[in-house]
Order: sequence, then C-alpha cells, then structure tokens
Amino acid sequence: MRRQPLLVNAGRLRETLDTFAQIGGTDNNGVTRLALTKEDILARDTFRACCEEIGMTVESDDMGNVCATLAGVQDAPPIVMGSHLDSVKKGGRFDGVLGVIAGLEVVRTLIEHEVKPCFPITIVNFTNEEGARFEPSMMASGVLSGKFEKSSMLNKTDSEGVSFEAALKASGYEGSIANRIAEATAYLELHIEQGPCLDQEGLSIGVVECVVGMVCYEIEITGESNHAGTTPMTMRKDAFFEANDRVSELRRQLDLLGDGELVYTMGRVQVYPNIHTVIPNKVVFTIEARHKNEDILREVERIIAGLNNGAGDGGCTIRISKLWSRNTVWFDPDLCSRIEQSARALGYSYRRMVSGAGHDAQFTASFLPSAMIFVPSVNGKSHCEEELTPYEDCAKGANVLLETVMAILD
Amino acid sequence: MRRQPLLVNAGRLRETLDTFAQIGGTDNNGVTRLALTKEDILARDTFRACCEEIGMTVESDDMGNVCATLAGVQDAPPIVMGSHLDSVKKGGRFDGVLGVIAGLEVVRTLIEHEVKPCFPITIVNFTNEEGARFEPSMMASGVLSGKFEKSSMLNKTDSEGVSFEAALKASGYEGSIANRIAEATAYLELHIEQGPCLDQEGLSIGVVECVVGMVCYEIEITGESNHAGTTPMTMRKDAFFEANDRVSELRRQLDLLGDGELVYTMGRVQVYPNIHTVIPNKVVFTIEARHKNEDILREVERIIAGLNNGAGDGGCTIRISKLWSRNTVWFDPDLCSRIEQSARALGYSYRRMVSGAGHDAQFTASFLPSAMIFVPSVNGKSHCEEELTPYEDCAKGANVLLETVMAILD
Repeated sequence: MRRQPLLVNAGRLRETLDTFAQIGGTDNNGVTRLALTKEDILARDTFRACCEEIGMTVESDDMGNVCATLAGVQDAPPIVMGSHLDSVKKGGRFDGVLGVIAGLEVVRTLIEHEVKPCFPITIVNFTNEEGARFEPSMMASGVLSGKFEKSSMLNKTDSEGVSFEAALKASGYEGSIANRIAEATAYLELHIEQGPCLDQEGLSIGVVECVVGMVCYEIEITGESNHAGTTPMTMRKDAFFEANDRVSELRRQLDLLGDGELVYTMGRVQVYPNIHTVIPNKVVFTIEARHKNEDILREVERIIAGLNNGAGDGGCTIRISKLWSRNTVWFDPDLCSRIEQSARALGYSYRRMVSGAGHDAQFTASFLPSAMIFVPSVNGKSHCEEELTPYEDCAKGANVLLETVMAILD
Repeated sequence: MRRQPLLVNAGRLRETLDTFAQIGGTDNNGVTRLALTKEDILARDTFRACCEEIGMTVESDDMGNVCATLAGVQDAPPIVMGSHLDSVKKGGRFDGVLGVIAGLEVVRTLIEHEVKPCFPITIVNFTNEEGARFEPSMMASGVLSGKFEKSSMLNKTDSEGVSFEAALKASGYEGSIANRIAEATAYLELHIEQGPCLDQEGLSIGVVECVVGMVCYEIEITGESNHAGTTPMTMRKDAFFEANDRVSELRRQLDLLGDGELVYTMGRVQVYPNIHTVIPNKVVFTIEARHKNEDILREVERIIAGLNNGAGDGGCTIRISKLWSRNTVWFDPDLCSRIEQSARALGYSYRRMVSGAGHDAQFTASFLPSAMIFVPSVNGKSHCEEELTPYEDCAKGANVLLETVMAILD
C-alpha cells in the first residue's frame, strides 16, 4: 500500500525563516549577511543551536562548511540537504537560507514522526556561496570538488584587505579536513529559482535538471577619436557606431539560434574617451550566453568569431577575447525523477527546468549524486531586498524535499 | 594698376611659432599652456615684448584679453587680428597661437614695408579660449559679447579650486574694462581647421562662412535589471538592447537627412549597472548634431523626439533631455569675399567651408564684423600633440590675412 506523504510544519518553517531574516536584516526587509561576518557567524551559531537541540552532531570542515548530522540506523553515506546561509549585500531573505532551514525542518519532522532513518541525514551550510565578500562565488563547494585550489582561496581578501583564512580562523568555524563531505547517498538543494519562470507560469516546483553551460567573451572595437564638429561622417572611424552595427548583427544571429532557451547578455559596456564632443575611439563590451545544450554554445562561439568577418570595412578593428566558459552540469537523473515523483505525490504543479544561475550543487555534482528543487521567485527578483517567495511555496518546497528524502529512505 | 600682394616673412613666422612652441612645450612636440598658468603668462609676456619692440601699445582689459595696437593715420575703429595663446593639456603647437603670431607677422611686415595704415591695427589674445582650465571655453570673448555674465565667470574654479578671478589677478594681466574691444573695422581670425577636409582635398585655404549651429541631447533609457542566467529573453527589459535598436533607428533616419554636411556624434555612453552578469537597467547617451542650416537641425530634433514613438514596446521607458543648442553664427559676407579674393590674388587653392568647432570669432561676430581663415590640419588632428600644420601652410594663411588687411586698408 502506498505510503501517505509526510508534511513539514509550515508554521514552524516560517517562524524559523523569520528568525534567520532578523540576522543581518535590513530596513527594507532584506538581509546583509556576508560570509564570515558577525551576521554570518550569528546565523551559523543559531543554526548549530537548532540542530544540537534536536540531537544532531554539528561539525565544521577546513573550509568552514558546517555539517549537522542525525545518525542513521546504518553507518552508510548520508543523505545531505543544504545550501548556504551567507547573502549578498542587501540581498533577500530566501536565497540560500531556505535550503538550509528546509533541511532543518525536514529533520525536525522526521524526529517528530519518529522516523528512524536507515542512512545518516546531514544538513550542510556551505561557506561563502555568494562570493560577495570573497570572490569567487561557491568558493567552499568549489574547493571540496577540486575546482578551486584551497591555498589560493585562503589568500583571497575582502575589500578591507582581510584574508579568507583570517576571517575563517576568527569565526571559530574552521574545522578539520576530515569533516569534509566526501560521499553521500544524495545531495539535495532546495533553492529559490531567482528567475521569473515558475512565478509567471503559476507553478509551485521546479525539478532542476542541470546548471546550464556558459561562455563569456569580451569584444574590443577600436576606431579613431576626432573632433565631433569638424570631422565629416565619411571620414570617421567611430567605434561606437561600429559596435552598434556589430551588436545588432550579433543579436540577429543569436535570435535565430536554438529553442528559445538561449539567454545572452551584454552587461558590461564601456565607451572611450566618453566625452560628448569626441568621436569614440574604443568600445569594450562583454557578451555571455547560456544554454544547457553545448552544441548551441558552440554555435554561439562561431557567431562571435564571425564578428571579424568584414571588420575593417568601417575602418575599425575588432579584438575578441574569450574570458571563460563552463560546461553544463547535469544533475543525477534518478534523483531528478524522485523529486518529480515527490511533487506529483504531493499534488503540486511542477515542471522540469534548468538553472541559469550557479549553485553549490553544480560543484557537489562532480563527487556526490546531486539534484536541486526550485520554488518560485515573485517577479524573478533575487539578490535584492524585494526578493520574495511566498511562505506556502517555501513549505511546498520543503515538503518535496522531505518526500524525496523519505523516498530514498524507503 | 593692380597692387602686387605683399608677402610675410615665412622664415620669421616659423621662428616665432617655434619660440612659442617652447613655452609649455611637451616631450612629444605638443604644448600644455592652460589659461593663466605660468606657461600662459610667459607666452603673454613674450607676445607683449614682441609687440612693444615694434612700437605697438599693449593693454589688457578686465578679462585679461591682451590687445597690442599699432596706431593708424586716422583714429578709426581698428582692424583686429587674433585668436588665443592658451592650449588644452597636451595640445598642439598651432591651435590658437597661429592666429596671434600671424597677426604679429602681418604687423611686422607692414612696418618693414613702411605701410602707414589708415586704421589702427590691433592684435588680440583672448583669455581662456580652450576652457581647459576654467569652463566654459571661449570665456573671455563670451563675456565681451554678452553671452556670459562676467561675475559668474570670475567665480569659475579650476580643478584645484583656484578661481578665474584669483588666477587673473595673480597673472598681472587684469586690466581696465575701458580697454575692451568695443568696435572694429574687422575682426579676422586665422586658425587651423582642426578637421580633415582641407588636408584631404589638398587645399591651402578655407574661407569660413560660419560656425555651424548645434543641438545636444541626452537620452536615458530605463529597463529592468535581472540575473543574466535566469531571465528568459522574452521576459527581459534590457536597456542596452533597447538603446542598440534606438541608436540604429536614429542613425538610419539621420543618414537620410541633408546634404552630407550633417555631423552627429554619440560620444558619451553609460550603461548601468555595468556588470557582465546583470541585464542592464539603464543606458544614458548623448547625441549632438551640427549643421549650418538650422532647418536641418530642426529635423534632427524632430527625429530625436520621435524616439518616444513605440517606446514601451520592449518594456523600457525613454527620457529625452535637451542639454543645449546654439544657432549658426554667420560671418560677415563682405569680409568672407575679401578673404576669398585675397586667396585668389595670391594664387592659393581654397574653398568656402564651415567651422564645426567653436572659436572666439563666433562671439565677436555679434558685435564686430568678423570672419575666419582656415589652414589645413594634417589628418584633421587637433587638441593633441600630433597636431600639425605645415609651415608653408601657416605662411599662406598669414599671407591671406595680410592681403585681406591690405585690401581693407586700400
């Protein structure tokens, strides 16, 4: 006979979220909880106290990641839930913290219902996911996955010149390398979508199949500065007009690509010398594009390389530099199916989707079976004080997380 | 019987230009002689000494403009020649100074040839034409013409906080308001073109008919910032893409206007927040356009106003602000004809043209019969150390100036 899904205590989840929203809370309903600041440390202390109160064992590893573990009947690789407690400056009250607090709520619910899990259950708080104090983002999960070198991360400094290493030592959360998560039955990260899709489509749950691949280029167009009043149009090498034409052509070609899922952005644009009476002699802009299908990204790169075709016609030169790229990270297909089944069992509307943003799960996926659950972000807003996920959606996300854990335990 | 044209002493003109090029000379053959700095004062002292040496009377007015006058047989309004001795930072060796030194060479030649002019002959050095130390440019001629208010100009400060008034007093060149040029038989300004036309066309002399009118607008396009990875293309309000489309449309329409003489520039462009992973929420850019025909400028303004047609389709809003405009300043037609006749009499190639840049003559034109003579700028370069006008072209310009003065005296 089919087991009836357990449900979390939605009121308690909300109260706990509200408690954490006070830690580093801003005047406009957001939070500022930069990694390893006193606000982040208070959030960690609060998290630790909550976990210890229900009999979990709390330990830190050498990157300051905090793991709270409920012993299992068997000494097997744990089921891990988690995300991060740090935030950007004037960020929202849901990004990251939801995945940690929902993990706590799942364990509280298991204990309340006297579920004796066969595997240990661990809740993890990854250090410095946002990278808002110490770049890069997802620093600690990056070190665990081998993506980043630990010694180089320890030397990263914040805007005041404080090193990550010094901040970590001062926090009291530097632990042993032996406490790193090295294996798991599953890593499950509940997170807000940070995009508008679920909200716009009126869906409750996103079953995240992957973190999309990405390419990022810098384009530099060089022309010639001259006096805006004395140089006839036909004798100009206007780098801004050349950039205008090239951007139009790039957009035209990119818009023909793919299945409507390609996103691309030219977010950083600088014009030189940037004086209204002087013809621009240089424009530098970035273009980054993301798609789950790497063949499409190769097409994007081919189109960008094509910028040089016909260059020089307007007298300008074009330099194309690849800044970086990352491959698509696919989550564990079995876990994705389990999450989908959980949403269905709970009667929640859902869809499979991709993550356009980076998350700790994209690094854990290289050494732990990993998957993510998304809940809606109202108007797609995130990394700002207006960030909002209705409490009922938070609870639905936590229920899917719980149901997925239960399914794995079954 | 037709008088044979007098010619200046080209070697002496060159030597004098070279002497002044040493004053504030830079390592790369340019000059830095910001208004009322010690370099500018040394240039003034040198100019004064040269003029006094040949029997001219040198006086300053209340804006520090220096007038050197050779008495005429009659006490009539003088024929005035001149320009400015100040330069921009790392400017060239010809801009401004040529018009003053050529005036000096004309007077030296008149004296050498024992010409007794019926009118007084005055050489003027206008203070702070460049506006590189104290904004605005053409400050002193602007005050004389009533375009700028003197008290407000005196309060202008340089980047160190020194006021124009303090710098003027310290220079020793503050004189009496009674010494202002109030009337003249003619004001003739020889200047480098600062554009590429004469050089490209292989012509020696430009007969300048006007300083073109100009309009300058600032366009602000506001969209919405969102995460570059999580926001589908169809849900974006990308201010940069909207700006890209609007700039293309503006260019398309402006390129259909007029007679090929319209110039327009979008020189200042700022994109916000200017982060490669964030969709731009604001783009601010300037557009300035210049043409002698004010009807064409009205068309330009109509096209710019049309930016708002269809605004909002892409979800962005557009704000259009007029920063300023100036009308076309037409020079004295009789003087233009005399200059043209002088070039022809000397057998120099020439053409009538407009000035796209501003000059003191555009302000004197409101109260003195004024005109300008242009000589070529190699590759149109100016306001930079590479600025170059071949000495033979400088001499040709001075000969046209001399011949025009002679024609007026005839």
